[in-house]
Amino acid sequence: MIIVMQSKASQNDLAHVVSRVESMGLRPHVIVGTERTVVAVVGDEREATSSGMETLPGVASVLPILAPYKVASREVQSEPTVVRAGSLVIGGKNIGVIAGPCSVESREQILETARAVKQLGATGLRGGAYKPRTSPYSFQGMKEKGLELLAEARAETGLAIVTEVVAPEDVTLVARYADVLQIGARNMQNYRLLEAVGKTQVAVLLKRGPAATVEELLLAAEYILDAGNRQVILCERGIRTFETHTRFTLPLATVPWLHARTHLPVVVDPSHGTGHANLVESMAAASIAAGADGLIVEVHPDPKCAASDGGQTLDFVAFEKLMLVCRRVAGALDRSIT
Amino acid sequence: MIIVMQSKASQNDLAHVVSRVESMGLRPHVIVGTERTVVAVVGDEREATSSGMETLPGVASVLPILAPYKVASREVQSEPTVVRAGSLVIGGKNIGVIAGPCSVESREQILETARAVKQLGATGLRGGAYKPRTSPYSFQGMKEKGLELLAEARAETGLAIVTEVVAPEDVTLVARYADVLQIGARNMQNYRLLEAVGKTQVAVLLKRGPAATVEELLLAAEYILDAGNRQVILCERGIRTFETHTRFTLPLATVPWLHARTHLPVVVDPSHGTGHANLVESMAAASIAAGADGLIVEVHPDPKCAASDGGQTLDFVAFEKLMLVCRRVAGALDRSIT
Amino acid sequence: MIIVMQSKASQNDLAHVVSRVESMGLRPHVIVGTERTVVAVVGDEREATSSGMETLPGVASVLPILAPYKVASREVQSEPTVVRAGSLVIGGKNIGVIAGPCSVESREQILETARAVKQLGATGLRGGAYKPRTSPYSFQGMKEKGLELLAEARAETGLAIVTEVVAPEDVTLVARYADVLQIGARNMQNYRLLEAVGKTQVAVLLKRGPAATVEELLLAAEYILDAGNRQVILCERGIRTFETHTRFTLPLATVPWLHARTHLPVVVDPSHGTGHANLVESMAAASIAAGADGLIVEVHPDPKCAASDGGQTLDFVAFEKLMLVCRRVAGALDRSIT
Amino acid sequence: MIIVMQSKASQNDLAHVVSRVESMGLRPHVIVGTERTVVAVVGDEREATSSGMETLPGVASVLPILAPYKVASREVQSEPTVVRAGSLVIGGKNIGVIAGPCSVESREQILETARAVKQLGATGLRGGAYKPRTSPYSFQGMKEKGLELLAEARAETGLAIVTEVVAPEDVTLVARYADVLQIGARNMQNYRLLEAVGKTQVAVLLKRGPAATVEELLLAAEYILDAGNRQVILCERGIRTFETHTRFTLPLATVPWLHARTHLPVVVDPSHGTGHANLVESMAAASIAAGADGLIVEVHPDPKCAASDGGQTLDFVAFEKLMLVCRRVAGALDRSIT
Repeated sequence: MIIVMQSKASQNDLAHVVSRVESMGLRPHVIVGTERTVVAVVGDEREATSSGMETLPGVASVLPILAPYKVASREVQSEPTVVRAGSLVIGGKNIGVIAGPCSVESREQILETARAVKQLGATGLRGGAYKPRTSPYSFQGMKEKGLELLAEARAETGLAIVTEVVAPEDVTLVARYADVLQIGARNMQNYRLLEAVGKTQVAVLLKRGPAATVEELLLAAEYILDAGNRQVILCERGIRTFETHTRFTLPLATVPWLHARTHLPVVVDPSHGTGHANLVESMAAASIAAGADGLIVEVHPDPKCAASDGGQTLDFVAFEKLMLVCRRVAGALDRSIT
Repeated sequence: MIIVMQSKASQNDLAHVVSRVESMGLRPHVIVGTERTVVAVVGDEREATSSGMETLPGVASVLPILAPYKVASREVQSEPTVVRAGSLVIGGKNIGVIAGPCSVESREQILETARAVKQLGATGLRGGAYKPRTSPYSFQGMKEKGLELLAEARAETGLAIVTEVVAPEDVTLVARYADVLQIGARNMQNYRLLEAVGKTQVAVLLKRGPAATVEELLLAAEYILDAGNRQVILCERGIRTFETHTRFTLPLATVPWLHARTHLPVVVDPSHGTGHANLVESMAAASIAAGADGLIVEVHPDPKCAASDGGQTLDFVAFEKLMLVCRRVAGALDRSIT
Repeated sequence: MIIVMQSKASQNDLAHVVSRVESMGLRPHVIVGTERTVVAVVGDEREATSSGMETLPGVASVLPILAPYKVASREVQSEPTVVRAGSLVIGGKNIGVIAGPCSVESREQILETARAVKQLGATGLRGGAYKPRTSPYSFQGMKEKGLELLAEARAETGLAIVTEVVAPEDVTLVARYADVLQIGARNMQNYRLLEAVGKTQVAVLLKRGPAATVEELLLAAEYILDAGNRQVILCERGIRTFETHTRFTLPLATVPWLHARTHLPVVVDPSHGTGHANLVESMAAASIAAGADGLIVEVHPDPKCAASDGGQTLDFVAFEKLMLVCRRVAGALDRSIT
Repeated sequence: MIIVMQSKASQNDLAHVVSRVESMGLRPHVIVGTERTVVAVVGDEREATSSGMETLPGVASVLPILAPYKVASREVQSEPTVVRAGSLVIGGKNIGVIAGPCSVESREQILETARAVKQLGATGLRGGAYKPRTSPYSFQGMKEKGLELLAEARAETGLAIVTEVVAPEDVTLVARYADVLQIGARNMQNYRLLEAVGKTQVAVLLKRGPAATVEELLLAAEYILDAGNRQVILCERGIRTFETHTRFTLPLATVPWLHARTHLPVVVDPSHGTGHANLVESMAAASIAAGADGLIVEVHPDPKCAASDGGQTLDFVAFEKLMLVCRRVAGALDRSIT
């Protein structure tokens, strides 16, 4: 940590800062500059982040140096993590595509979708049985009945099941059916839930919250890793900005940035990331080109009748076209969608 | 809902839209303009928000008309809700001030703070016993022991206890000690938790998520109201923007905007809203001037030693000055801090 | 325009709105709903945007329907505009790459760069002679001397020159040297400057402002088009959001969104859009995959010695790799970089 | 500047960084930590900000220490600047209120407004004669005729004239009529314009751009100060965020933050900052409570007929109420509106 003193700070202020740093078991280095004095602190500052140092008299600002995440870091594990969950392999050279409806709505709907996306090359089936909805008056999901239908779709097609879990008390139940537990964007900082999925050995797909920094995403992953589960997939699904022509703003530079800092694989959700079906294919292709290890895409037999998120959902024809384009881009970059 | 057709939409497209609206039990009004045709739809569109209308051929965009919240709305209840929780009264002419440390750290710390803020005019005592922390390596709170210390502080000072609950399974326990259950910003859309506090009859202080729109805040409140609990206080605590000189950006126009649309009282958190102790007093005064029904402020006997959020925490001297200024501003607007 | 009345609006309020709409020469359609009444207005509302309609008693909100831009719109011209400026062709199947230093610094620097990027496949040479800098104490550019050096580079390599113009009074001078006049992000709404370049017949590259919506970008283009210059290239270069790990957030969904609404070609600037050299290649490839018609990339013989923007600038080796990857992605999508 | 090395950086990398710092005439201090090595650099780094240091091998990040503005800084001048422009005094104990229409529309309109706002306590009259408009199809202002009408209003009422200048070539003309030259938000980084007004001795009101950081605002002020004009008023008028219920988000914490760092006075524009007439009074009062040195408010005899910005404009009755409330709040804080 670097403590920058105010230009008007007194010798007393400086002495106070130095003694406080020492009392934390850290070593201060005082550097007197032409306009400012700074105190560089050496040692594991992560323990000291909540130390209120910036409230000391004469302190102008405090700059952290160490990244606060550990287990997720490339510096701890340099080779990429490959997550394997049934038919779904994400990471390394493998690009996995997870497709399916926003919500499981009926046996026919989920089976028809599973067959179609399987044939077009998806290796994971998404489908929400528990739906966190902004309004209490919206459809909240089929719950366990939905999970049973997903399991039936897996039995028939072999697709790995990716489905959301919204509360710690549901984890055991959902984990009985799911190959990948999805943590939704609204729950990225629901720490009890992160700990609960961290105690399972089921893979986790962790979505970035729309106002979360990438550091916060890595710290949320750290909760899961720290609880013992190393099968974590990060998911960029868009952030909230001033833009309104898309539902969220999809910042693909997250992909190479994360790859440089963490060994965990990164998938992109171009459906939520744009909110408009006609933008999904372009952004799926762009995600692959940016280096994404996978995609999660909303597909429905009849999007205009979908119980939720119809406006951003592809039908089978549009998904076929997306897969064609994404395979080409992946091939151009020596990766393959499998 | 207003459905705007593309300028190149065919008669067929239009007929399709009309028949789909009718199949939803709503009445379409087709209006042919010089450049565009629009279909105005009359009836309770809230049921139809997930209808995928924008994916129909020829549709350019869909504009909602009705606000999606009901019970929270001024149109349902025109007089303001006054929340009473022990010594704390928030709403109407009453401005309530809730003060105390970010975290309960020790018996001495919380009792000393309670005595001081009580004497300076606070009517509520804040203090976290369960702390949702961004990093798994940060202090996570004293848990039930912390609740007991808060109860002891209430027994001695009479201050109402405002404390955070982070998971549905903790609600019963926390509600045994708390006068006001706080839902933190990260949990604003943790719907299970909202439903759980909605089933108690303990007042709830609901913080706005840093990326939540004001409509989403009202919909989160709606979950609590709809579950049967009408004692809800809304809290503006800042949003995430490109600004970095403050921890969050505190948008006080939320206060009069909410007052015009909801009967629920609104408090402001200038501590999290700015992140810097030296900005708190000004923003507390500004909040009162903007019409806030209360404040929630971080106060600690020795901020530089606080276990969390030290940089934004006031000591007793600074809090005394804040109260003095806020009382004056409140008086100038014919309101009183009690 | 759709005027939504408050639920408590009186018949009088409604009559007032109707008569005001009529006085504007527009036709009002009153639709009485179960909870709200709306007035749908038909006619060219663009003339009426500043009519203060929302301040009338009983009006809840006003929703515009028509897009405010005209000449830039796909509805006016359905086939894409192809901008040709010397060796640079942007639009249609052609992807053009503009490369070069942030600032022209010396004869040797610009000639060396021009030769290298030409050989690696660029068809445009960028280089700033007039630099708008955030701080008055930063390097402000070589001015006309810089333009002369750019012209020399063109004479030798045949590359089209893309260079920024920062003030209306400089347009004539810069237009004597440039093949493409660049309007920087800070000047996107400098209307005098837009009008001035609109009166030339030199192609214009118009950068999106970091807080500008895509509609505002199209309206800025409209100033240039309306003044008579149809050779306009739009440039996405990132927006300002809460993210700090990149200099700006690069929202590539802008590319397909713009393509659906305007015939103007769209290029992407992955250098400013990320701010970090190690993210540029990935985002360049992602831009091509998203459908961009071109790239503008900062390249310098020795980035660590660049007079400006060194941190986001590629050296020749990195640019060679970028071109290789981008050619492959372009090829996968049946486009070519020429 | 603090240069943070990567944990895997070699001794060679470090030596390279050290020698480069020395070649810039600065002194490097190498501090070897348990996980990282940092190089603290002492000397005036402002000269070196564009040095591309972060592209050197082994460098993880570069943290600046010195604020890049100088003349605007409190450290250069500790007592607050009081700007005096005719009847308008802004700074110190004085709160000045500037009121008037968005655009000058007619002799009657501007004279009627001037008389009304003067009587209600304003000391400055705003009114745009040159209007920068997002769309080329919107009303662009009365130009010099508008300036003449403003001068006539001043002659009659004694109010200081505050009016916008949009291009360097207009500065001489506008300065002949204006007491305060307004630089609009879109032009905050139009450096030629800043230099041009910096060369006059007419006071300048500099509006913050909607995506500008506060540091960038101070650097824009620095252009004016550095050119020789010390009469600069800063104006917070809202930033662009994800919020859409207000036109911009008005972050009042800017006011105390600026007061701590600069001696320049700060005024707030609650009209543009909210975009809705019914939020203006509350935010005006909040601005005063936050410590603002003045207000700039849109007032029109008949807002619903205003040629621009009608939705955010007050009529005389609403302005009277605003002044009453603001006077009370100012009084409570021992300041006065004069």
